[in-house]
Amino acid sequence: MTLILSNDDVASVLTITDCMDVLEDAYRDLHAGTAVTRRRSDSLTLTEREDAIYGFKTMDGVIPNQGVAAVRLNSDIVTWPRVDGNLRRVKVPAAPNDRWVGLVLLFSTVNGEPLAIMPDGVVQRTRVGATNGLGVKYMARENAKSIGILGSGWQAVTQLQAACAVRDIEEIKVFSPNQGNRVAFAQEMNDLLDCEVAPVGSVEHCVTDVDIVMCASNSIEAIFFERWIRTGLHVSSIKMPEIEEPALRKADRVGLNYGQRQPDTVRGAGVNPPDRRTGTGWAVHEKFDFESCPKLPEMIAGEAIGRTNDDEITCFVNDMGLGLQFAAAAGVAYRKAKEKGLGNELPTDWFTEDVHP
Amino acid sequence: MTLILSNDDVASVLTITDCMDVLEDAYRDLHAGTAVTRRRSDSLTLTEREDAIYGFKTMDGVIPNQGVAAVRLNSDIVTWPRVDGNLRRVKVPAAPNDRWVGLVLLFSTVNGEPLAIMPDGVVQRTRVGATNGLGVKYMARENAKSIGILGSGWQAVTQLQAACAVRDIEEIKVFSPNQGNRVAFAQEMNDLLDCEVAPVGSVEHCVTDVDIVMCASNSIEAIFFERWIRTGLHVSSIKMPEIEEPALRKADRVGLNYGQRQPDTVRGAGVNPPDRRTGTGWAVHEKFDFESCPKLPEMIAGEAIGRTNDDEITCFVNDMGLGLQFAAAAGVAYRKAKEKGLGNELPTDWFTEDVHP
Repeated sequence: MTLILSNDDVASVLTITDCMDVLEDAYRDLHAGTAVTRRRSDSLTLTEREDAIYGFKTMDGVIPNQGVAAVRLNSDIVTWPRVDGNLRRVKVPAAPNDRWVGLVLLFSTVNGEPLAIMPDGVVQRTRVGATNGLGVKYMARENAKSIGILGSGWQAVTQLQAACAVRDIEEIKVFSPNQGNRVAFAQEMNDLLDCEVAPVGSVEHCVTDVDIVMCASNSIEAIFFERWIRTGLHVSSIKMPEIEEPALRKADRVGLNYGQRQPDTVRGAGVNPPDRRTGTGWAVHEKFDFESCPKLPEMIAGEAIGRTNDDEITCFVNDMGLGLQFAAAAGVAYRKAKEKGLGNELPTDWFTEDVHP
Repeated sequence: MTLILSNDDVASVLTITDCMDVLEDAYRDLHAGTAVTRRRSDSLTLTEREDAIYGFKTMDGVIPNQGVAAVRLNSDIVTWPRVDGNLRRVKVPAAPNDRWVGLVLLFSTVNGEPLAIMPDGVVQRTRVGATNGLGVKYMARENAKSIGILGSGWQAVTQLQAACAVRDIEEIKVFSPNQGNRVAFAQEMNDLLDCEVAPVGSVEHCVTDVDIVMCASNSIEAIFFERWIRTGLHVSSIKMPEIEEPALRKADRVGLNYGQRQPDTVRGAGVNPPDRRTGTGWAVHEKFDFESCPKLPEMIAGEAIGRTNDDEITCFVNDMGLGLQFAAAAGVAYRKAKEKGLGNELPTDWFTEDVHP
């Protein structure tokens, strides 16, 4: 049977520590060459709405030691509104019932069969959190005790869970431009995490007197600036533009997830998104030398160093998602969901065939 | 609702003429730049079977004028046996119930929603047939009346249907090394097509005194040779290696489907398939100048010429599949299946989400 899982199913089984464990293994395999990941591709065209474009995004990964392959795909109607002064890339929930469209399809590398189909949302935020958590594990001070987080949205939850899983965090400050959001989020995190979480009214207050700053915004412009850099700080971001280039330059070391220069973009006639240079990929920071940055697979394999002493300033830039991450995270979600009898089972024959394709 | 279609559903609605019509439109859009197609990628790793590799293949296409985007994927266990002296690339039906795994997922470019999921088999052979049919339409003599076809397998059916849809074919000869196969196939085609179809006992007999030769084999070595080239002949192939390089050189003009040099291949450690240089991509014919060959989108748009007179020798090499072709063909299959009430409907909410991915 092929398992159809919902985001709720995935959320009920996929813990951040599971995800970090399976990602570490996958990164070791990637470094060793036994696992592979195919660069994300974006196919962009016009759509009926004149203020939007249609984007079809896919990425693949194969991890034979975990027995899984996956494609993650997004079928998006994308707009670029300006919110609170910052340019944002906003996907419109245009599908029936005001929903978004993102999927992970999971396959077996042993016999090729389709194991599961699931939405990508929970997998996505868990793998983003786990990745930045690995950034904290390999790059932040061992004795880091406090975090300031910029952002209180969907991604911020797993960022904090992951950081707390690898460091003994006692205190967290939350800033978001919207007071209601930051208060509600701080309350939610207080209940979820074993430490003090408090909303703060200014971004300067949030980034002061903390060991780690985590950017977890939807902004495609800088939200963390050079003037906030201090001895021993670790700054983490989930989107390339969040940390401004002068701040990256001031760091002793900038770590990357995997180091992909840019997505493989196929752009139709008339498609000119405003974030062509400011959204994804190294070109966001035109003059920064990402090529020589240590990458997570190298740090995990012990072939690159994330931090040498408590005084160093480190940044971690979660530069681009990998199909490999979705294979690993969806794989563990599938195995645990199957054990628990979650999801809707469909005949595997619906997704296979008796003719040689 | 999202429609789950079977190969039988697709076969019952997707005609070769539908497919050729929709492909011509898609190629015009591709040439104009409004439609896009993302190069096929192959992610290859080891698998448990020592004589096989695991291959995860994906390709995407978006055609906003037809309202569709698609990814076509294959999750394959691949082996390389030698059959009748020729090296073949054989996908093992290793999934439950001895089945293969290939899918097309179709999405709307208007609102992003998942429209349909279907196996790729019937779509694949229909789009391959339609593509070579367009090769015949734009490159074979207008007065071509006879075909010799090499191969009697799954792909051969649509090759003949497509050629007969664009030329007034009266006589077809079929050769395949296996007598039972060629006799059964000739009988089947006699019933299906409005012309005489006869099996022949030698490949030389098959390629002699015909206006068109169609290669429709599973071979990854040459099966059509220079010595068989004659004035006015059109030779068509579904796999890059089928027509040997000296034969291509002897042609006045060689047309390509779209002209992709090679797939975007990510190869894991230890993966050394024997067809590394002989399977797919231009490297099969090391010295041939594919770059300057006319491509179907150019011929359809009237910006390249396929044939100038009845004496020219032309070849058409269906060099690599396109995500665009799957979007077009699956799109028309979906629309017709929906009209007829075919397939299994699943809630679209199963494949969409209420969180921003």
